[in-house]
Parts: sequence; C-alpha cells; structure tokens
Amino acid sequence: MEEIDEIKEVISNYDKDNIRIGVLASHSALQILHGAKKEGFETVLITIPEREGFYANFRHLIDKVVHINTWKEICRDEVIKKLQDLNVIIVPHGSMVEYVGSECFLDLKIPLFGSRKIMEVEADPRRKMQFLRSAGIPTPREFSLEEDFDDLVIVKLPGAKGGRGYFIAKGKRDVVKKLGNNRRDVIIQEYVVGARAYYHYFYSPILERLEILGIDIRYESNADSLGRLPKSDIEPSFTVIGNIPMVLRESLLPKVMDYGDKFVKATTNVERGGIAGPFCLESVVKDDLSIVVFEFSGRIVAGTNLYINGSPYSWLYWDEPMSMGRRIAREIKLALERDRLYDVLR
Amino acid sequence: MEEIDEIKEVISNYDKDNIRIGVLASHSALQILHGAKKEGFETVLITIPEREGFYANFRHLIDKVVHINTWKEICRDEVIKKLQDLNVIIVPHGSMVEYVGSECFLDLKIPLFGSRKIMEVEADPRRKMQFLRSAGIPTPREFSLEEDFDDLVIVKLPGAKGGRGYFIAKGKRDVVKKLGNNRRDVIIQEYVVGARAYYHYFYSPILERLEILGIDIRYESNADSLGRLPKSDIEPSFTVIGNIPMVLRESLLPKVMDYGDKFVKATTNVERGGIAGPFCLESVVKDDLSIVVFEFSGRIVAGTNLYINGSPYSWLYWDEPMSMGRRIAREIKLALERDRLYDVLR
Amino acid sequence: MEEIDEIKEVISNYDKDNIRIGVLASHSALQILHGAKKEGFETVLITIPEREGFYANFRHLIDKVVHINTWKEICRDEVIKKLQDLNVIIVPHGSMVEYVGSECFLDLKIPLFGSRKIMEVEADPRRKMQFLRSAGIPTPREFSLEEDFDDLVIVKLPGAKGGRGYFIAKGKRDVVKKLGNNRRDVIIQEYVVGARAYYHYFYSPILERLEILGIDIRYESNADSLGRLPKSDIEPSFTVIGNIPMVLRESLLPKVMDYGDKFVKATTNVERGGIAGPFCLESVVKDDLSIVVFEFSGRIVAGTNLYINGSPYSWLYWDEPMSMGRRIAREIKLALERDRLYDVLR
Repeated sequence: MEEIDEIKEVISNYDKDNIRIGVLASHSALQILHGAKKEGFETVLITIPEREGFYANFRHLIDKVVHINTWKEICRDEVIKKLQDLNVIIVPHGSMVEYVGSECFLDLKIPLFGSRKIMEVEADPRRKMQFLRSAGIPTPREFSLEEDFDDLVIVKLPGAKGGRGYFIAKGKRDVVKKLGNNRRDVIIQEYVVGARAYYHYFYSPILERLEILGIDIRYESNADSLGRLPKSDIEPSFTVIGNIPMVLRESLLPKVMDYGDKFVKATTNVERGGIAGPFCLESVVKDDLSIVVFEFSGRIVAGTNLYINGSPYSWLYWDEPMSMGRRIAREIKLALERDRLYDVLR
Repeated sequence: MEEIDEIKEVISNYDKDNIRIGVLASHSALQILHGAKKEGFETVLITIPEREGFYANFRHLIDKVVHINTWKEICRDEVIKKLQDLNVIIVPHGSMVEYVGSECFLDLKIPLFGSRKIMEVEADPRRKMQFLRSAGIPTPREFSLEEDFDDLVIVKLPGAKGGRGYFIAKGKRDVVKKLGNNRRDVIIQEYVVGARAYYHYFYSPILERLEILGIDIRYESNADSLGRLPKSDIEPSFTVIGNIPMVLRESLLPKVMDYGDKFVKATTNVERGGIAGPFCLESVVKDDLSIVVFEFSGRIVAGTNLYINGSPYSWLYWDEPMSMGRRIAREIKLALERDRLYDVLR
Repeated sequence: MEEIDEIKEVISNYDKDNIRIGVLASHSALQILHGAKKEGFETVLITIPEREGFYANFRHLIDKVVHINTWKEICRDEVIKKLQDLNVIIVPHGSMVEYVGSECFLDLKIPLFGSRKIMEVEADPRRKMQFLRSAGIPTPREFSLEEDFDDLVIVKLPGAKGGRGYFIAKGKRDVVKKLGNNRRDVIIQEYVVGARAYYHYFYSPILERLEILGIDIRYESNADSLGRLPKSDIEPSFTVIGNIPMVLRESLLPKVMDYGDKFVKATTNVERGGIAGPFCLESVVKDDLSIVVFEFSGRIVAGTNLYINGSPYSWLYWDEPMSMGRRIAREIKLALERDRLYDVLR
C-alpha cells in the first residue's frame, strides 16, 4: 500500500489554510469548480491547450490554470510538484482515468477526493461486474460463447467506453455473426428490458451517512432516437451524449438505498476506508419493479451536471443548493474543520 | 353525510396552535414532510416497520413517528386516537387508498387535506371516466365487446393500478385473444397516439384560484424503452417507475387551465365544497394540438416529486421555492390564519 | 436601412427612466414578464381577447394590458402610438412573426430586443440553411428531386412550422409518392440519425460575450411516442408540444460554443450590429459525437421556459436565478446604465 503512505506524507506537507481543489478540464469540471467556489476554496483547472478557450468563459470560477500539453503530462514530476505546491486536491472524474492512463492514475502523488482502487475496478469490465455480484447487488445474467442461448443480449467489446463499443444481439448465433473474428474478451450480458435509472450517491465518511443526491437517464445516440422512426433497420448505438433528469417512485428508494449501502460496504475490501464521496449505480427497473444493476461508476458521473442548483433529492438533505460538486467541497471543508482530511482522501 | 360532521367535530377539538401534518411513508411523503417543515409545521410519519430504516435518513424532516405493523392498522381506534391527540391532518397520496382500503379511507376519523369522495371516484375506472365526461373534458372513445372495431386500443383489467394490468391491442379480435377468459369488467379505450403530459393542479379554496404547479411525463417500464430496440416483438408494459420533467407549449396552457376549471367545478357535485388542493389530469396531446384526458388523480401525484424546489410554473406564482407539498402546508397555514380550517379539510 | 433610423428616433423620444418591456400573449410571454419584473421593469402584455382570461391568472406579473382584437392590429398606428407612449420595448418570440406577418414585423416602429432581419432569414427555410452553411456550421445534406437518392430524408413542405408539415421518407421514390402533386418549394434534407439537442444562447453586446444558458429536447407529437407501440405502421409527425430538459456531455460544449460564435459572427452580415440577445441552434448529435445543425431560431425559444429559475448552465455564469427572460431584461438594464440602449435594440 505504498502509494497511500506517500499520499499521507503529501497531505502532511500541505498548507491546510490554503487547500485548492483541482480538476481536469472535462466531464464535470464546471460543476466541480462551481461547487468549490461556493464552499470558499480556490480552484485549479488543469487543461490542455485545446480546452483553454472554452474554459476561459468561466474564468470567474477558476483561480489558477495549470497548463499541460497532453493529459499524460499530469504525471510528470514538475507538474506534480507544481500541484503539490498549490496544495491541490484533485477530484477525479470519468475522463481522468481515460485521459491519464490507469498506471499513472493509480500512483499519482496528488491527494484525490475519490477512490483510486475502486476506479481501477470500474475500468475492468469483468472485475466490475464481479464486484457488484460480490456486494450482493442484482446484476444481469452473463453468457459465454461456450454455451447456447436465445436471449436478447448486449455485447461489450474490449475497451467499450461511454456507451461506445456495445451492440445488441438476439441469441448466440447473432452474437457470433456480429462479432466476426473479434471474439476475445467480449462480455455478453442479458439485455434487461425496462426503464433505465442512474442513481447518484455520496458517501460521507465525516457524517457517516449515504446520501442519494440525484437520479438521471443517460441520453444516448442513436438508441434514444430510433423509436421516432417508422420501421427502421438501423442498429442501436449507445454513445452517451448527455443526461435527462428524473425522479424515482418513492417506494423504490429503500431498495436503491440498500444497494448503495451494500456497495459502500463492499468497497472497504478494496481500498483503505472504502469509498469516500460520489459513486453511481446504473440500473434498469423492470416492470415488476425489480432493479438490475448493469454497471457502476466509482466517482462523480456527468449526470450530476443536471443538478448544479440542487436536485429533487439534495433539497431533502440540504437547505441550500447542493450539487455533487459542492457536496464534495463541503466534505473536504468538514474534514478540514475536524482535522480529518486524510480520512476523505485516497 | 355522517363522516363530514364527525370530521368537523374532530377538528373542533384540535389545538389549532399545534396542528401537525401527517403522511404515510410512501409515494410523495418526503416532499410533503419537507413542505410542511418549510411552512413551520411539526410532522408525523406513519410507517410500517419495513420502511422505518429508509425514512430514518430524513429524520430532520420528521418530528414524530407513528408505528403500525400493517397499513390497515391506521384504521384501528387506538391509532386514530393517537393521531387525533397529535392534532394530525393527513395528506393522502396515491398509495393511501391502495394501502388502507377504500372503506376505511372513506370513514377515517382523521381530517384529510384532500378529497375522500373524489379519490373514491378515482378508484373506480368506470366512474372515473364518466366523471371526466360529465365535466366536459375530452376523453378517449370507449369500446365494448358487444361491438366490432379495428382501432388501436388500450385494455385495462380490473384492479389495474400504477400502470400495471394494461395492455395494447389492435381491433376486437386481438383484444379477445389477449383477454382469454378474463372478460369481466375490462375497460377498452381508444389508444390515443400523441405525446403524454400530466398536469399538476392545485385548487385553493382560500385564495379562490386554480394554480398549475407543474407538468411531468410518467416514465414507464418497459414502454419507454422499447423504442431503443431493433425490431422487437416485446409487448409494451406500463408500470410507472418514475417521472421526467417537461414544460408545455404556452399556447396550450389556456386549454389546460380550462379543463382544470371544469374539473374543479364538477367536483362540487361529488363532495362538500368540491376538491381542495392537488389533483392531476393525465393527457395525450395529439399532433393537431388537441388534448385528450385519459385519467385523473384526485390528490397529489408522484410527478410533483420532481419539483421539490419549485417548478417552471410554480415560480410564476410564488417568489419562493414552492413544491406541491409546501403548497399544501401553505394552504393549511392560510386557512388557520383566517380561521377557515374546516373549509380546506374533508 | 430606413427602419433603423426610425427606431433610433423612437428610442430617443423614450423616457429612459420608465422603459417598459412588452410581449405578445403567447410562446414565452410568462417567462419574459417574470424576468422583466425581477429586473425591476414595468411590463406590458399585448393580447387578443381569447387569451386575456388565462393571462389574468398572472396579473401580478403584468402592469399594463394593451388589448387588440387580432394580432395584426399591433401594426395599426394607434396601437403603435400607445406602445410608444408607454416606452415599450417588445421582446419578439417565436409566435410573433407568425402572428403579425413578416412585412409588418420588419417595419414595426417599436424598438425590439431581438433581431428583425435574422428572424426574417429564419422564416425562409432556404435562406435559413444557406445562412448556417455560410457561417461554417455543419448542416445536413440537401437533396433535390432532380437527382436520385436512397437516403432516409425529412421533407419540409412550404410553410412548415413548429414541427408541422414535415414528413420522413426513404429514397426519392418514397418522397415522390408521399408528395403527390405538391412538389413546389419542398426542402429535402438528410434525416440525421442521432440524439437531438437544442442549445439556448445569449449574445451580450454589452458584456461582449456569448453565454450558453440552457439546452432542451423538443417533445414532439407523435414522434416521441411511437417507440412505445409494438410494430406500428403509424407515420411520425413532429408537432412540438413541449420541451424536456437535458445537459450535454461537457466535452462537447467547446464545439457548441464554437458554432455559437460562428453564428454570431455571421449575423453581422445581415443586421446592424449582428444579433443581440437570444438565439438557438437545433442539432442532432451523432454517435460519433459530431454535431449537425438542422435549423436555428433567431430569437428566444420556448425550450427556455424550462429554466425560469435558472438552468444547469445559467448557474455557472450567474449567482442568482437567471432565466432567458430575465437575462434579456438584465441586458436592457445594463445597456440603460451605460447609456447604450440603441446598441441592444433593433
């Protein structure tokens, strides 16, 4: 557990009165910056040149910019040194592992508000589903090409990401036909028919409670538009292009909270202290009101961008506008006040 | 009209300075509790053991918990006595009639902010549609198995609820085939093709005005996901699993307000004073911009859970965040200030 | 450029301490009135008799009502005189050109916060697409009946508006069959398959910046409901009946901002000072994350009605609830403070 001790050391050298919250210029950065400012933190945007122009529109949310030429440069010693000198805590988001690579990410000598090892599990499709099953959360059936099946399935190619690299098939024969020769490392999952719902959780080590801060539906191209066409032969694709807000039937929330609790508990087997902060369970609700979780995200999801002024759920907990980005900053603030910063960082 | 006099008597014994707002632990309870607290009321959660753990996450919204072992126990004398001693007004929601049964509900000796007799009409599919027609609100055509028809229809089995027990068919032959021997008491309604919209109204006896506080789309499993699949043979099902926000074309709002007015007026034939508080008209907007109402709810609907911090419409009326739950509590407060509590309770 | 000088003269006669914001009773009027009041302006509702009853529900947002018998009466001298005497700036919306006719609209001797000439381009389907192409914004391919094609296309009949008068066809043969003899002035556009997203921009001449204040999905009858039906032969129709909120993948926002900048720049070739205030680009996001813009609106769109208390994007710019209607009023206020009113009016 070498990296953890090193993180402890980095934190011990930080000026606790000048902690800054840093984020890579993508995914949910605007929300994270906005939330950090609301909680009184200075912010640091880490950006490549192509993104600078856009984020300059929000310079009132950004105190410092750390310029890098490629995302992977964040792993270079001088960049790390610069971030450490600014007392930066990075909030990792869904683009971060993808951009910087998982080796660099895992050992990065910057404190993260977020869970390195759980994000590592998230990045491996097989470990991811195995983790959910071991947590006791219902997941879709999996099929192998060794067996015969007639079911409607979704096939995930190696490296599938953000909804790309998935396809739907009906039965083994159709899977084999569509795969062609690329049969290695594919995941074949029961396609659960029902309404999708993505739950945004926040686990607070300081308040020792799990909060449900919002729910969304991912808006996918072209799957969410095919129904508008008459009798079409177009195959669905699943690239996530945005998010749509929703609330869930209140009588389902106890179950959603239960699965969240199970997830938190299971993370203690993976990382020191388990998960701290945001995560997401990605589910289908069937017409018998059972919930099947087909993926998770071990960090902030972009669906939280819907709720920058609070969600139908966050208002139940907080009597002020509380986005996920602000909730993260609030937790860091609470931890600083209690001299427990190390407990919320990984 | 025995029960009404009894309610008057119960109210007359209440301590008006210590009115508490009570709700069963389901449906829109969190919103109702949240709204009641915002208006300065103490709250009472009535709950069965299985729900206690979940609602304990929101104990900051709950002043008293009344524990019952089954929902029907709310009808027992000692529970009623306890609620009366706490000066409780219950806000009935969509799960209440289902949970406690309509006989108990109708005679329950607890003041309700909501309409017993209109909820009774709501619970009977035939009276429900008859009520809408008598109010002068456009409804879908109905078919009987005595006649022949080729139309696309939706068939509602007896006891259909929350979207369960419905199916779609094309023409009489298909209906008969899908029904099998269960032909009794089915309702066969024209399936109106168009965009669904559910209007959340609030009628205020104190301000003597009808407000439109929000609009939603019910999110149904699996109907709202079938369009994502290529050429599927899966039959749609209509279990409501949540709600999605929407706004309506402004030029349609006068019509929506007109239908709401008609509804309010018609309720005066059913219950003393007509409806007080929330109700919902559930419609399809056709591509010629006509509106067809296929159902109503004579009480708060779960779609209002979207708007816990106000909706695009509530902000037009109120210069503060006004959920339907808070609006209910506000009306009780206004009635208390004017010594007119009996006028808003049923 | 006669009308511009005349507008300058009208403005010069206005009492700058008593500017009133006026709007026709439709489309986004409630939002515009609400926003004007928030910024401290008096408001004027211009209405026909059929709409008065509905808008009377919002009399707290309306200071003066100008009654006209038909929309076109707004072009009569005495109505114009009355509006000038009230120092009215009209905020034109999507119903205005349709209601008053484009000749009257173009020469109307009332200052507009909005762009006459760009709205004129918007009203002409061929010039509209030509304008987008000349701005350097990606648009769908267009087809003519002189050529042969097999593509999925959307056909727009002359006068198509608000989603009405469109149909989908597959290949030239199907187009010809569905058109029958009405082949004049039709536009045949590639039907781009992907997820629709509508971006609400505001260009501020005073702050010299382009803001993205919201994104929505138009909710169309019956296209958005067909996917709920099993194997249906019903042809899609595209009447807009409302709007659903969404957020976009953050990594797409730089491109969206770029297209907005290109649009603003191109408008300077069409109208003195280019566009001032709201406009909308109406797009499909393909599964390769490219964006194709199939239409624009050169004024406030009804999708902004979703965000009367602010949108996920407006909160990033403004630390207060900022609807598009309020943003318009804010710009007028800023212009008045800087004695630059003429710069934001057209």
